[in-house]
Amino acid sequence: MGQEQAFAALAAQLWARFTQSPSDRDLHGRSESHFAPMPPDAVAYPESTHEVAAIARICAAHGVPMIGWGAGTSLEGHALAPQGGLSVDFSRMARVMDVRPEDMLAVVQPGLTREALNTELRATGLFFPVDPGANASLGGMAATRASGTTAVRYGTMRSNVLALEVVLADGRIIRTGTAAPKSSAGYDLTGLFVGAEGTLGLITELTLRLQGQPEAVSAAICAFPDMTSAVETVIATIQSGIPMARIEFVDGESARAFNAYAGRDLPLTPHLLVEFHGSEAGVKEQAERFGDLVADFGGAGFQWAHRSEDRAALWKLRHNAYYAVRALRPEAAPITTDVCVPISNLARAVEETAADIAASGIPGPMLGHVGDGNFHALLLPDPAIPGDWDRAKALAGRMAERALRLGGTVSGEHGIGMGKQGYMQAEHGEAWDVMGQIKRALDPDNLMNPGKLLRQN
Amino acid sequence: MGQEQAFAALAAQLWARFTQSPSDRDLHGRSESHFAPMPPDAVAYPESTHEVAAIARICAAHGVPMIGWGAGTSLEGHALAPQGGLSVDFSRMARVMDVRPEDMLAVVQPGLTREALNTELRATGLFFPVDPGANASLGGMAATRASGTTAVRYGTMRSNVLALEVVLADGRIIRTGTAAPKSSAGYDLTGLFVGAEGTLGLITELTLRLQGQPEAVSAAICAFPDMTSAVETVIATIQSGIPMARIEFVDGESARAFNAYAGRDLPLTPHLLVEFHGSEAGVKEQAERFGDLVADFGGAGFQWAHRSEDRAALWKLRHNAYYAVRALRPEAAPITTDVCVPISNLARAVEETAADIAASGIPGPMLGHVGDGNFHALLLPDPAIPGDWDRAKALAGRMAERALRLGGTVSGEHGIGMGKQGYMQAEHGEAWDVMGQIKRALDPDNLMNPGKLLRQN
Ligand SMILES: Cc1cc2nc3c(=O)[nH]c(=O)nc-3n(C[C@H](O)[C@H](O)[C@H](O)COP(=O)(O)OP(=O)(O)OC[C@H]3O[C@@H](n4cnc5c(N)ncnc54)[C@H](O)[C@@H]3O)c2cc1C
Ligand SMILES: Cc1cc2nc3c(=O)[nH]c(=O)nc-3n(C[C@H](O)[C@H](O)[C@H](O)COP(=O)(O)OP(=O)(O)OC[C@H]3O[C@@H](n4cnc5c(N)ncnc54)[C@H](O)[C@@H]3O)c2cc1C
Repeated sequence: MGQEQAFAALAAQLWARFTQSPSDRDLHGRSESHFAPMPPDAVAYPESTHEVAAIARICAAHGVPMIGWGAGTSLEGHALAPQGGLSVDFSRMARVMDVRPEDMLAVVQPGLTREALNTELRATGLFFPVDPGANASLGGMAATRASGTTAVRYGTMRSNVLALEVVLADGRIIRTGTAAPKSSAGYDLTGLFVGAEGTLGLITELTLRLQGQPEAVSAAICAFPDMTSAVETVIATIQSGIPMARIEFVDGESARAFNAYAGRDLPLTPHLLVEFHGSEAGVKEQAERFGDLVADFGGAGFQWAHRSEDRAALWKLRHNAYYAVRALRPEAAPITTDVCVPISNLARAVEETAADIAASGIPGPMLGHVGDGNFHALLLPDPAIPGDWDRAKALAGRMAERALRLGGTVSGEHGIGMGKQGYMQAEHGEAWDVMGQIKRALDPDNLMNPGKLLRQN
Repeated sequence: MGQEQAFAALAAQLWARFTQSPSDRDLHGRSESHFAPMPPDAVAYPESTHEVAAIARICAAHGVPMIGWGAGTSLEGHALAPQGGLSVDFSRMARVMDVRPEDMLAVVQPGLTREALNTELRATGLFFPVDPGANASLGGMAATRASGTTAVRYGTMRSNVLALEVVLADGRIIRTGTAAPKSSAGYDLTGLFVGAEGTLGLITELTLRLQGQPEAVSAAICAFPDMTSAVETVIATIQSGIPMARIEFVDGESARAFNAYAGRDLPLTPHLLVEFHGSEAGVKEQAERFGDLVADFGGAGFQWAHRSEDRAALWKLRHNAYYAVRALRPEAAPITTDVCVPISNLARAVEETAADIAASGIPGPMLGHVGDGNFHALLLPDPAIPGDWDRAKALAGRMAERALRLGGTVSGEHGIGMGKQGYMQAEHGEAWDVMGQIKRALDPDNLMNPGKLLRQN
């Protein structure tokens, strides 16, 4: 068997850092989401780019699938092994290789988490802004084109990755991009690997843009009488050009989940959580302009978080939303949705979705990075209730269709993995085939994370 | 002959909008740069996406090269027809299809120029920021991943194109991206076609991000005693986080060219040309902070342009730099260079280049979008002087090597075309082959702008 020979070669190459132990396989076969476990046949823990290239050459020679593993927090079964093969776990490639404050960039290994990077950066006055809440790895974040709470101000991984080192399916090591701020020298391969979900190659190094820590930061939470007023406030805020650092929506059900999970006593109505970055004067001015808009739309009950501990508590609340919401119905098999629409259609998208969820009888708290037009309903079907799962799937499908009808996308930030392939034809049409042509050109044997993102035939 | 059959079919399809007239061919075989004329065998003027698709199907069936033509201002022979074939001129596809102020985006046809777009946008309070100086077409700008004076603040075409419609080599019409601000739904095909120089497909529609017109704008020019002080001012300005809207460097030779071309009397020393965008108070604060830095580095002689006519005159001066510099030696065959380095290496790159040019004896005024680390020397070898051309080529080669050695790129914004293929191996290594693999996957018969960007074999 090809796989057995490959595993023998990998064991010879990696010693104890290659394993077929049931516990390692089990760990790399699970996700945070509803997917049934799909363990790989083995797990490798490379420590260098050259080891990753050696792994790829061995796997390529024997036809063994390679699935990158960062922190395993992706939500669409991205890192599972539906066709078995080798999970390539980057946890031992987690170093900061270089920080260049004058160029506002850092060179890191893919297994480094965003929190670890920001801890290392603290003394430099710089930070890496992309914040998906979960303490994801930077390689995984690049692979899913992650974003999160701060993308409204600082952009997604698309705009914050300057250069990559990638190991291709045949073991070739390439570099894409440079440390210069821009380039017109050829195809944008960096942009191609960002968001490719590990289906085109394994990222072994990233050059990331950093931001200067703002002189002043201020955050707040405020309540709204209803969903429409909260969403209209967001739209007016974005259109008025206030440079929000964060502007997050949570609905009344999510507020209920926060109260239960974190011992808060928020009113059970929609809220916005916001943050301002700038000079002292700038933050003050932004906060005042925002406050005026909130008042115009009937919002109230501002709680300001001026001290950094208070801000940390506020964003912890938000970042734990996924777990807080799941705790509302622990027996549920959660389905995360992740639509994103043009801001002019945000109110309509949110309202129609809320009505659809209410009519379905499935619990589905809603929240999102609404400054980008991106929101989630976390649907909580109970597998023990007949029809619940199918109703939730249909609901998620209607959300995706609605997003497309309103000019948007079926995934604002989580990606496609194994969970959203069913919507790709509707979103992309023949462009999905073009993705397949690129995939076949770079990975003709379909060894890089097979079964994800692309059309399966 | 395949081409004859194709041309008969095209004539039947397009009537008078297909032509083999010598004047049309001649016009589409010339560039602004030093390349010898390379006319296409025919020119088509499509009026719709469906016509472009029909053209592609006909050309594909008969093996005829297709070369997109926007405004013909590209500098590396991008739009020439070294292998003959059909020039597809987009001047009759130049409409604004839709402006959506609430979403801050516009949908345009590729032949529209950036000036025409901004004229149409005037009443909306919005503008399209990317400014390569030349009145290029938006399709051509996307194809070359253009940037220019404002990229330091608003980004390049990479970050300002949200979605595309593209006709592929086989005539398929695809759409990439959506009108939503972000997406993680599959490979970033938009990013792949932006910068592909028409080698992967013909862009037939673009969805562009717009910006709000700033409340206040102020611009200025100031002089420096030497190159080092000017460049150090730029580095300090960028590192201090002042959100410059424009920060342009010109050397003493360029100042001399400006004086001659535009009747100015600038001192014959290096200058910076800058612009600030923001609120009244913000612009004032930015200008003061910048003024302090200028003074620290010995700059002086600020001339402020507060009125919009004065600003227009200032930027006209800059935008005509190419022609002003060429007029220094009209008999020269100009070689444009376009390197871009990390900002920390900018001073070194500029100084080493200046010394190299001085030693060569070739006139080569330098100027650039230095806030991005991007600068040009316009080398002016005289074909009548033996050895001049070769010396200039060698100089350009050393500039490219220097940029790479300093962590940068051989093209910050102009692209590769036929002029910079010789540096691609050094910059990209095997990644250049990966570009070739993608090219072959999407255009196996090499009909889309053959002879450009990719390795020729
Ligand atoms: C509570 C919670 C909140 C979340 N909130 C957000 C949010 O706000 N925004 C957001 O964008 N996402 C969010 N997510 C999803 C998740 O955090 C992101 O998808 C994240 O980018 C995944 O990173 P990871 O390191 O966990 O990747 P993994 O799950 O390990 O892998 C993700 C994908 O990347 C591939 N991969 C991993 N490493 C590499 C590599 N080095 N080279 C190539 N491919 C690789 C894997 O094969 C897989 O396809 C959330 C998740 C949770 C659990
Ligand atoms: C005076 C002067 C100053 C300049 N300054 C700058 C600057 O500051 N920054 C900068 O970036 N550039 C600059 N340039 C270069 C030039 O303006 C840019 O490269 C511009 O993007 C070219 O646009 P165009 O419409 O003229 O394209 P063209 O020259 O017509 O074509 C350029 C390339 O795009 C392809 N193409 C054109 N239309 C399409 C389409 N619809 N679909 C697919 N491919 C297409 C062509 O085949 C060709 O490969 C300058 C040029 C001049 C003459």
